[in-house]
Amino acid sequence: MLAAQLNQGLEYVNMSLVNVLDSDVDTLADASRHIIQSGGKRIRPQVAILSYLAAGGDDVQHVADAAAALEMVHTATLVHDDINDHSMLRRGKVSVHARWGRTFALLAGDYMFAKVYQMMARYGIRCNQIMSDACVNLVEGETLQALAAKAGDMDRETYKTIIERKTASLFTAGTQIGAIVAGATDEVIEALGNYGRYLGMTFQVVDDILDIVGDPEKLGKPVGLDVTQNRGVLVADGAVPSNGAPSIAEPADPIEALMNKLRESGAVEIARLQAQELAQRAREALTIVPPSPARDELYDLVDLVLERDR
Amino acid sequence: MLAAQLNQGLEYVNMSLVNVLDSDVDTLADASRHIIQSGGKRIRPQVAILSYLAAGGDDVQHVADAAAALEMVHTATLVHDDINDHSMLRRGKVSVHARWGRTFALLAGDYMFAKVYQMMARYGIRCNQIMSDACVNLVEGETLQALAAKAGDMDRETYKTIIERKTASLFTAGTQIGAIVAGATDEVIEALGNYGRYLGMTFQVVDDILDIVGDPEKLGKPVGLDVTQNRGVLVADGAVPSNGAPSIAEPADPIEALMNKLRESGAVEIARLQAQELAQRAREALTIVPPSPARDELYDLVDLVLERDR
Repeated sequence: MLAAQLNQGLEYVNMSLVNVLDSDVDTLADASRHIIQSGGKRIRPQVAILSYLAAGGDDVQHVADAAAALEMVHTATLVHDDINDHSMLRRGKVSVHARWGRTFALLAGDYMFAKVYQMMARYGIRCNQIMSDACVNLVEGETLQALAAKAGDMDRETYKTIIERKTASLFTAGTQIGAIVAGATDEVIEALGNYGRYLGMTFQVVDDILDIVGDPEKLGKPVGLDVTQNRGVLVADGAVPSNGAPSIAEPADPIEALMNKLRESGAVEIARLQAQELAQRAREALTIVPPSPARDELYDLVDLVLERDR
Repeated sequence: MLAAQLNQGLEYVNMSLVNVLDSDVDTLADASRHIIQSGGKRIRPQVAILSYLAAGGDDVQHVADAAAALEMVHTATLVHDDINDHSMLRRGKVSVHARWGRTFALLAGDYMFAKVYQMMARYGIRCNQIMSDACVNLVEGETLQALAAKAGDMDRETYKTIIERKTASLFTAGTQIGAIVAGATDEVIEALGNYGRYLGMTFQVVDDILDIVGDPEKLGKPVGLDVTQNRGVLVADGAVPSNGAPSIAEPADPIEALMNKLRESGAVEIARLQAQELAQRAREALTIVPPSPARDELYDLVDLVLERDR
């Protein structure tokens, strides 16, 4: 029953994402559909749908456009990130920037962001305030990350602020909006919001760990990108010299040398402990939510996020 | 009375624009305020406030945030345009891109766009549907322009589609939202929307004319930019060879030679006739709106837009 509802919800989300990106300007439809259909994990929509069900909602169609909008915000930022990072690959496929060029990648990101706004409009004032706050937080988090990378001075406090804003904000918005659309009480909305916040932070720390120890084949992208650009938890843990480069003479490939040093430094293990602590807080937030199969699934999702390898 | 209301409204708009851009991420606050305070004409907010008053509104504070959001959308697109065009100057000052670099200009544009969404949230479903549709249209119009410039095949029909979407869409949204916030009837909302649409198109044709015959000092930007990049009405009128370059050998400065040729070709006069025709349609749309000092001001604004030299 729950699995069927969740699958139906995700099907609505995928339909919504493709349909809403239709445009008589082919370049925009093609470029935005290229990335939206390139197989993201859809974890943000999934969390929003489960939150809606855990909060008592019974027709996933009601939450599907909002869940899709979360994926759209996230994907729009990927398109713009790839411009700034000169990334040629995304999710194992050529990036929008590499295929359509910078001008159209910038416009495609703007287009997807405008579509988010359009998809959300019908959800009314409260949901739109939450979603727009999340978008502002997200851009602030990305900017803090770019500033820290440029200055080479990532510390643990800055890292926490960055992952809260750039990643956790959308998870928080998704769980809150799911609960609001389901007509939940303020107490449940807040609890699910806290769950989303800690799940999102866990997700990002694991992402940064996978950047070091992950399998590029499974991830569909090269590893070591974040570390060598002075981003990520391992930099915050002080395992990398602040300029992001090896401090002593190294073998031919300095990135490979840096990665090896990191893998041997114990920084990955410290980050794993952080992820486990955040995951525990996510679980604790759920105790306030009434028991249900959807709540159980949200518990299980914490483990999936912790143990994922892609 | 009307002048006082309009001035008060524009003061609210300017306060709103500066206040809403506050952020603990200094780079975002600084970059976005740099361009928002660089002296734009504020014609979009002005039109929205006058539309609100002409539709029977009596407290300009109610429409001020929406009017400010229109200026914010427009300004966000300028920041992103300047990245794509490599423009170093904007409104007579250094562009965000030139001063903060591409990465932060891209993020500042995204930030301003997220702020638009945040400012609009409280206006409810109908206003947000109109504003988000306008944002989608705007990005589509910009993309069509970039595609036509790249292909060198601007024709008159494409030009009309482009200016409707990239410029008139925000004017239309502003007049409609002003009327909706004032509680106007659907008939008046539609009439003011049509006024906004034709005023916006007039505004853009005049803008393209000023790109050829304007005074760079008064405009605060170089002239000839649009023509040499295959954009604008004069290209659509066939006065310029489709590759945007002079077709025969010319004196030392080919841009100056092209501009001279254009000024002598009669294309500017054709464009002026187009602008006058569009302006007349804007005036006609107002006949459905009940007479008032604000409606008179909207009439006068048509002439100001037609005759402007900056």
